[in-house]
Amino acid sequence: MSEPTAPAPTTGAAPGAGAVGAGRFHRPTLRSLGLPPGKLARLKRLLYAHGPGGGTLLVLPIDQGLEHGPVDFFANPDSLDPRYQYELARDGRFSAIALHIGLAEKYFHEYAGEVPLILKLNGKTGIPPDAQAFSSLTGTVEDAVRLGADAVGYTVYVGSPAQDRDFRQLVDVRRDADRFGLPLIVWAYPRGEAVAKKGGRESLYAVDYAARVALELGADIVKVNYPVPSEKDAESPPPYNTLRLDPEAAFRKVVQSAGRALVLVSGGEKVSDAELLAKVRTTMHAGATGIIFGRNMWQRPRDDALRLTRELHAIFREYAQPP
Amino acid sequence: MSEPTAPAPTTGAAPGAGAVGAGRFHRPTLRSLGLPPGKLARLKRLLYAHGPGGGTLLVLPIDQGLEHGPVDFFANPDSLDPRYQYELARDGRFSAIALHIGLAEKYFHEYAGEVPLILKLNGKTGIPPDAQAFSSLTGTVEDAVRLGADAVGYTVYVGSPAQDRDFRQLVDVRRDADRFGLPLIVWAYPRGEAVAKKGGRESLYAVDYAARVALELGADIVKVNYPVPSEKDAESPPPYNTLRLDPEAAFRKVVQSAGRALVLVSGGEKVSDAELLAKVRTTMHAGATGIIFGRNMWQRPRDDALRLTRELHAIFREYAQPP
Amino acid sequence: MSEPTAPAPTTGAAPGAGAVGAGRFHRPTLRSLGLPPGKLARLKRLLYAHGPGGGTLLVLPIDQGLEHGPVDFFANPDSLDPRYQYELARDGRFSAIALHIGLAEKYFHEYAGEVPLILKLNGKTGIPPDAQAFSSLTGTVEDAVRLGADAVGYTVYVGSPAQDRDFRQLVDVRRDADRFGLPLIVWAYPRGEAVAKKGGRESLYAVDYAARVALELGADIVKVNYPVPSEKDAESPPPYNTLRLDPEAAFRKVVQSAGRALVLVSGGEKVSDAELLAKVRTTMHAGATGIIFGRNMWQRPRDDALRLTRELHAIFREYAQPP
Amino acid sequence: MSEPTAPAPTTGAAPGAGAVGAGRFHRPTLRSLGLPPGKLARLKRLLYAHGPGGGTLLVLPIDQGLEHGPVDFFANPDSLDPRYQYELARDGRFSAIALHIGLAEKYFHEYAGEVPLILKLNGKTGIPPDAQAFSSLTGTVEDAVRLGADAVGYTVYVGSPAQDRDFRQLVDVRRDADRFGLPLIVWAYPRGEAVAKKGGRESLYAVDYAARVALELGADIVKVNYPVPSEKDAESPPPYNTLRLDPEAAFRKVVQSAGRALVLVSGGEKVSDAELLAKVRTTMHAGATGIIFGRNMWQRPRDDALRLTRELHAIFREYAQPP
Amino acid sequence: MSEPTAPAPTTGAAPGAGAVGAGRFHRPTLRSLGLPPGKLARLKRLLYAHGPGGGTLLVLPIDQGLEHGPVDFFANPDSLDPRYQYELARDGRFSAIALHIGLAEKYFHEYAGEVPLILKLNGKTGIPPDAQAFSSLTGTVEDAVRLGADAVGYTVYVGSPAQDRDFRQLVDVRRDADRFGLPLIVWAYPRGEAVAKKGGRESLYAVDYAARVALELGADIVKVNYPVPSEKDAESPPPYNTLRLDPEAAFRKVVQSAGRALVLVSGGEKVSDAELLAKVRTTMHAGATGIIFGRNMWQRPRDDALRLTRELHAIFREYAQPP
Repeated sequence: MSEPTAPAPTTGAAPGAGAVGAGRFHRPTLRSLGLPPGKLARLKRLLYAHGPGGGTLLVLPIDQGLEHGPVDFFANPDSLDPRYQYELARDGRFSAIALHIGLAEKYFHEYAGEVPLILKLNGKTGIPPDAQAFSSLTGTVEDAVRLGADAVGYTVYVGSPAQDRDFRQLVDVRRDADRFGLPLIVWAYPRGEAVAKKGGRESLYAVDYAARVALELGADIVKVNYPVPSEKDAESPPPYNTLRLDPEAAFRKVVQSAGRALVLVSGGEKVSDAELLAKVRTTMHAGATGIIFGRNMWQRPRDDALRLTRELHAIFREYAQPP
Repeated sequence: MSEPTAPAPTTGAAPGAGAVGAGRFHRPTLRSLGLPPGKLARLKRLLYAHGPGGGTLLVLPIDQGLEHGPVDFFANPDSLDPRYQYELARDGRFSAIALHIGLAEKYFHEYAGEVPLILKLNGKTGIPPDAQAFSSLTGTVEDAVRLGADAVGYTVYVGSPAQDRDFRQLVDVRRDADRFGLPLIVWAYPRGEAVAKKGGRESLYAVDYAARVALELGADIVKVNYPVPSEKDAESPPPYNTLRLDPEAAFRKVVQSAGRALVLVSGGEKVSDAELLAKVRTTMHAGATGIIFGRNMWQRPRDDALRLTRELHAIFREYAQPP
Repeated sequence: MSEPTAPAPTTGAAPGAGAVGAGRFHRPTLRSLGLPPGKLARLKRLLYAHGPGGGTLLVLPIDQGLEHGPVDFFANPDSLDPRYQYELARDGRFSAIALHIGLAEKYFHEYAGEVPLILKLNGKTGIPPDAQAFSSLTGTVEDAVRLGADAVGYTVYVGSPAQDRDFRQLVDVRRDADRFGLPLIVWAYPRGEAVAKKGGRESLYAVDYAARVALELGADIVKVNYPVPSEKDAESPPPYNTLRLDPEAAFRKVVQSAGRALVLVSGGEKVSDAELLAKVRTTMHAGATGIIFGRNMWQRPRDDALRLTRELHAIFREYAQPP
Repeated sequence: MSEPTAPAPTTGAAPGAGAVGAGRFHRPTLRSLGLPPGKLARLKRLLYAHGPGGGTLLVLPIDQGLEHGPVDFFANPDSLDPRYQYELARDGRFSAIALHIGLAEKYFHEYAGEVPLILKLNGKTGIPPDAQAFSSLTGTVEDAVRLGADAVGYTVYVGSPAQDRDFRQLVDVRRDADRFGLPLIVWAYPRGEAVAKKGGRESLYAVDYAARVALELGADIVKVNYPVPSEKDAESPPPYNTLRLDPEAAFRKVVQSAGRALVLVSGGEKVSDAELLAKVRTTMHAGATGIIFGRNMWQRPRDDALRLTRELHAIFREYAQPP
Repeated sequence: MSEPTAPAPTTGAAPGAGAVGAGRFHRPTLRSLGLPPGKLARLKRLLYAHGPGGGTLLVLPIDQGLEHGPVDFFANPDSLDPRYQYELARDGRFSAIALHIGLAEKYFHEYAGEVPLILKLNGKTGIPPDAQAFSSLTGTVEDAVRLGADAVGYTVYVGSPAQDRDFRQLVDVRRDADRFGLPLIVWAYPRGEAVAKKGGRESLYAVDYAARVALELGADIVKVNYPVPSEKDAESPPPYNTLRLDPEAAFRKVVQSAGRALVLVSGGEKVSDAELLAKVRTTMHAGATGIIFGRNMWQRPRDDALRLTRELHAIFREYAQPP
């Protein structure tokens, strides 16, 4: 009973751990997940044979051109060319790059075999408002197989008025992922007008709920945002409205709700190096499997980004564990 | 023709029965249901080979993480880890555990062959309001077959403005359940703005109607809530607006409306031991096949929960009947 | 590396073992087989929840009416009525009964939930000669699911000139069994004119080869006959033509060739009780998972057969092992 | 890294270039696109064997009868007969003609082999308002194959409230285009009430976003309109609200956002010859692959139109590049 | 046109090359093959990320239990357990292991992510005679995808009277391999009574013809045996009946006939170390991409086999080339 829930004693071999406070929370081992051979083979590739290894994940997403538009590329004009991100993923030894069908079909052939591919299967533009958020398909699991991808990604908007269509669409994706042995990564995002009334999409209530929904719907890995405390938490259902957890405890709560779905945390907007590294350390200490940082990576100049990834690799090595 | 509807004389061998009042109402025998061999084989497994046996059902549901969010797990932090419920189901000798695809794929492999599985096939989060309640698919009957489940569960929101989509979605599930020989358990819940105007979702009018709808749409087993008398009953259509039935009589009415769909009653929020046991005795006396108690089980500490299940087993034994 | 190949030391707790000679050979554990949850759930039902349990199998086949014709029922006229075998399986607590679609559709509903069903999916009559032996389908995996069977059976005639059609037919059965999570039991029988020229169908060469073929083609369980030494062994390819193994060593060789396919041994023609029990003990000691005895069971009068099954249960208990 | 993003030095051989100002921006080569052989063979037909060649595209669209109604044909009554456009395409040596299934099935047989065909696969009338713009299918990729078309066209309304259905519909078209090896040309048009609130459909923000969406969704070629600066740009998200780019720089920005999707620019309403030729030169200089001019072509008298195409051919020759 | 056929000058950096004689013949680069991204990604994994790398292949096949029977395992009894081969492949850093569905489903889960998998899709036993040789399917390309295999293998018996069925069966496999982006490795074996009359299955005529057939039918990689000169060559059609080529020249001829299908050579029966290493050097010098040695590997004791693979790695390093 104790494997993912009980904190293991912090060992002397994890020097960074002491800096964060309470005991390290161990993520589930790959072996405990009951995965079929295809998912296992592909996850071991991502978690052990590429990137920082040791069962961790460092993913570079480049779907912002669809989700936000080219606006995100102004900060670093080189980043407008998708090869910038592919090369950053390759040279910075990321575990994988995550993107939509068009960037896969037009560019992946140059990096195939060097950078593992996560094909993102649904998306939307940021132009219409989010009240009824729903991302429709942009590709299929079979596209992912055909292109040699090692996993698929799907965004579910938890709590959106359109969540019924979303869950239904996800069933087919999940079944195809099961059929073809591809790991399923669920971007679990609280969204929509009802979420806004219960503390908002960054509340612990919403993020914690989203993590659990991903687990229950069959995610192998769930991508969540950090819960961010705010005054709006008072509108969340009890006991969330009165909970006062420090950032690490809050995130550990989310990791526990995700159970045997491994947890990736997204970076959001660009922050300073120090903030970013502290965030990563806290995250890993709280039981995350890794991070999926986009703008925080490719909005930096190449050399700056590569230097930062080396520091991330160093942190990740402290959290290596066998399969 | 009189077999399931006529009350049989209370026998001296059913000591508990006397305590409840009017004559015991006998549930339909398995043989009378006209089931094809696959459904029969699987139902006998649930009703006779596991759990309390004797044709009864004691089901542990763990879909609250999806339906309500992790909020339900605060009462007993151990319950956040799905293994807590699996182990409670195994050690408390439940007839089955009921849950969604994610908790099946990630955890069932450790308990396969020890705890029968009911795969819940649709659900939703509790975040958006219930006025247009609809639960979309989270899994399929074929998933249930593949995982070795012994039955499938489907929630229909009787009376919801979305019931047209719901009925249509249920047809496919019911047909697949027929095709593969899996018993179909319908969670029949009155919901939506129109129900609210006719006495509410706990009114006898609504619960009775929901039970009948499940029978008519092809349920093998129907899960209902207890009808709860209230002032709002006056808004129900006649003669419900003036009916005055004691709890057992009201529930017996529901059982009769369900006809040859076996009846499971849900527990709802956690209550005291004495209340719970009295409720169960009444229920069984009124012709239920069993209960499906979640929070009333796994929100208790493990030893407490196990002690309670032993008491439930004892009650159920009084209501044993041959197939 | 040692799990199925290395003999474990004979323990004092296995009294029968000492009587047979060399060390007991341990069969693979269920956990080591990498089975998906559906196969696991169903195999645990057959191996632990029914029959002698402890990971063993005692199967009653009744496909002789198709394979040999009613001729086999003369020895015990009661056996002509399939209920005789069903009731023998139920009252003798067999792990399962194995038969074709017709005997399932017409009789199983009376025993569903009491006797697990193995649906045999292909067969032929014994009327044409065996030189080009091939058994075509009589049912499908989906029939098995629909009827609530816990496994499917398929006969492959290894070495037959028709083996190309046979392998091809088996692919579809195996894929459906994978898709639906049903364990696949392969009756691996050497047959045909080419087999006859290389030592014959009972030679160790042929039986050993057949066991390996079943493993390579995806059997979860392989049913083999006992290898029977004869002068024709000299026609087998080297080194089989000069091998001199005692019956247990020869059978252990077959079990090793089957690897992680569990081994069932068939009984063949009726023999004396003493012979039969000795055979079973040798078989289990050599690493078999169980036996599938038809004529040796139901050609006996009911009481005689039931007495024998009790003795078999006693032997099997000595070879119990955890999953 | 330098191929599509870095401007190549203006060579003396491109005399027109000097007239436009900043350095010429080179479009991607066909070889760099990672196209499968079928797409490559068909694109080389359009880009090199027909029309102006040298990797450029001069496309004549005639879908205005559906999109706007016969109103567009009043300016030149001859243009009401589709043969007018077919013959203009043939005699003016266009790279292809683009139209819907009806104009293909009824007229193409007379020009097959002389004028390459782009089958437009979705459309709508201009009668309902555009607030929820969505174009449903009028044909299929298989129709295009059957008719001998060399590419297919699909309109996506970026930012429309119906973009979820649009993206979903496009997935099937894109997959079929991949399956059959047909190049996919996406008409990427910003539309809908949300676009209107962020600078409007001709804003650089909107056009730039649309180009990127087409790339991410798998377009081989994207058709965009010219961004037109206006006071409404102030309502676009930053930094678009304060960007001040000359027309060529703005268009080059769009070409860069389209990445490895080749860019076609549409003509819109009829303008003077001088304006049109200047626009084309700027367009090609900024990295476009070609133009798709309808009304600006077939609303002119035939001789006038043919004279103009000869001038376009001359300009295009300046921008020839090898595959 | 000269890329794969023209011999490149032997460089001083390839010391072993000088020992073999005529100039080294360069195999095609991966980039020249026109592969879609999925095949490219998977082949780069096999050719660069695992095994000796540098574009070479060292494959361990374990299908002899099906093709020859357990007889091949007597030479090294440990080899009867498939884990022996899996561990040899892992510890000897082979590029991949090649085997049938049963050995994949039952054992691969323990080695997933460590040893790349080639799923062999057809086979037969060695019991019937080879005059009408045909291998029917044992698995499918979709099985390979599901299990996480990186390539599929198919045996075609060139020249067999059954080659019509064989070619037809191969079409479906090849199409699925194209659809899912899996590299197709064709075991191209001359077989059957007609081959026997034209010099036999080891003649240069037959091997050379088989290599070309694999290329023409769509193989990405072709596995051939060495041509072995004999007196029967006189029965081959001219000019093969009078050709006198040394072994390297003969093999180079075969490599040239295979064109852009990369060539693997099989080892056949076990030979001495010196013979084997010389053979490998000749093979690589003549333009092979690698070797697929089974019995020559796993019939050796583990330490002996590992020592030999280290020597093979050293040779392969001399023939490394970029993608």
